[in-house]
Amino acid sequence: MSDTAVTSRRREATRQKLLDAATLVFAEVGLDAASVEAICERAGFTRGAFYSNFDSKDELFLELVGAVARQRVDAVRTRVAALECEGALDRVATDALEIVQSVLDVSPDDRLSVLLMNEIRIHALRTPALAAAYLAQEDEMLVSVTQIIADIGDAGMLRFRLPAAEAARLMLTVWEGAAVRAVMAGLDDVQVRRRINEELARVAQLILEFPAPR
Amino acid sequence: MSDTAVTSRRREATRQKLLDAATLVFAEVGLDAASVEAICERAGFTRGAFYSNFDSKDELFLELVGAVARQRVDAVRTRVAALECEGALDRVATDALEIVQSVLDVSPDDRLSVLLMNEIRIHALRTPALAAAYLAQEDEMLVSVTQIIADIGDAGMLRFRLPAAEAARLMLTVWEGAAVRAVMAGLDDVQVRRRINEELARVAQLILEFPAPR
Repeated sequence: MSDTAVTSRRREATRQKLLDAATLVFAEVGLDAASVEAICERAGFTRGAFYSNFDSKDELFLELVGAVARQRVDAVRTRVAALECEGALDRVATDALEIVQSVLDVSPDDRLSVLLMNEIRIHALRTPALAAAYLAQEDEMLVSVTQIIADIGDAGMLRFRLPAAEAARLMLTVWEGAAVRAVMAGLDDVQVRRRINEELARVAQLILEFPAPR
Repeated sequence: MSDTAVTSRRREATRQKLLDAATLVFAEVGLDAASVEAICERAGFTRGAFYSNFDSKDELFLELVGAVARQRVDAVRTRVAALECEGALDRVATDALEIVQSVLDVSPDDRLSVLLMNEIRIHALRTPALAAAYLAQEDEMLVSVTQIIADIGDAGMLRFRLPAAEAARLMLTVWEGAAVRAVMAGLDDVQVRRRINEELARVAQLILEFPAPR
């Protein structure tokens, strides 16, 4: 392996260790109290190592949010592809709740991700540069989810009453809202996921258009 | 006026002055940095006066959130009643965007309220007692909005594809999501309101059921 490849791998490993350490520190003390110093100490690196990987604490945490979002979307995309293979999306008048549950059951929602997303959102609301980065990241996720919804439409007998992009935005908005309420209600991670799925299923029923019976 | 009535009025005035001062301090430094000391100083009262009105800083800010929510709901309710009187809700196949804009145009959404709502939400996510109070307050608002939606249904030729309570929750969820995105996009208060109305109108179209042509 070339020197460049080794350096690049080491850099990637350092970056990941910092991200992992930040997750732990965040879980313990929240976003505001999670200092660069505390993160570096937990990761076993210097401030220099931190700042050669991230411009700021906010940038690191926004990346964490992005990683959670991508994980979520990847899991859903994989599941949809599997369902297509099984022919599970072909059935006319398929039960919306079943579809949503099958598709979304794989999603890694948990209390910590919800806290992280909401705390970054506060920082973004007060900091224009971070807001722009947050919205850009959200748009990336929307593009992915829009594609998944469009694929579901193409694969089966399912039609939507909204354009795929609007359906994607609505589903993501309901997802966030349901997640926050579930965490506030003190539900554990399994119950949070179930509550989210139930709310999404109701919205899916609203969005799906079932062909008239022949 | 009796002594009790005078005391009660003075107490109410003190309470309101503290709430107003808290709004100002919050606008300047955010929720975490808005200390009880700073609020008392701005209001011109002692800590004793604060704690005889509020159990904690969180309780005061949750009340502020509730006040914003009630203002919003009252404005909408008044507008719906006015539209009913004008007979504006009777028309079959009325344009959903028009209804939503007429109904919601009076709503006092602004950047500060959005910031406040989201910062209280973070505290609630991390503090079970506050979370319970937050959810209780949200349920109160849901009951009011559910009633408004049910009234709209009764008053006119409008039917909904969801039960009024679910429609209320969906509209409120979309409202919050749209408001956050609009503020993050750096829009001014007028544009924030317009963006929220547009997103709500699309959801309203999804929820409204138009009778088949005769």
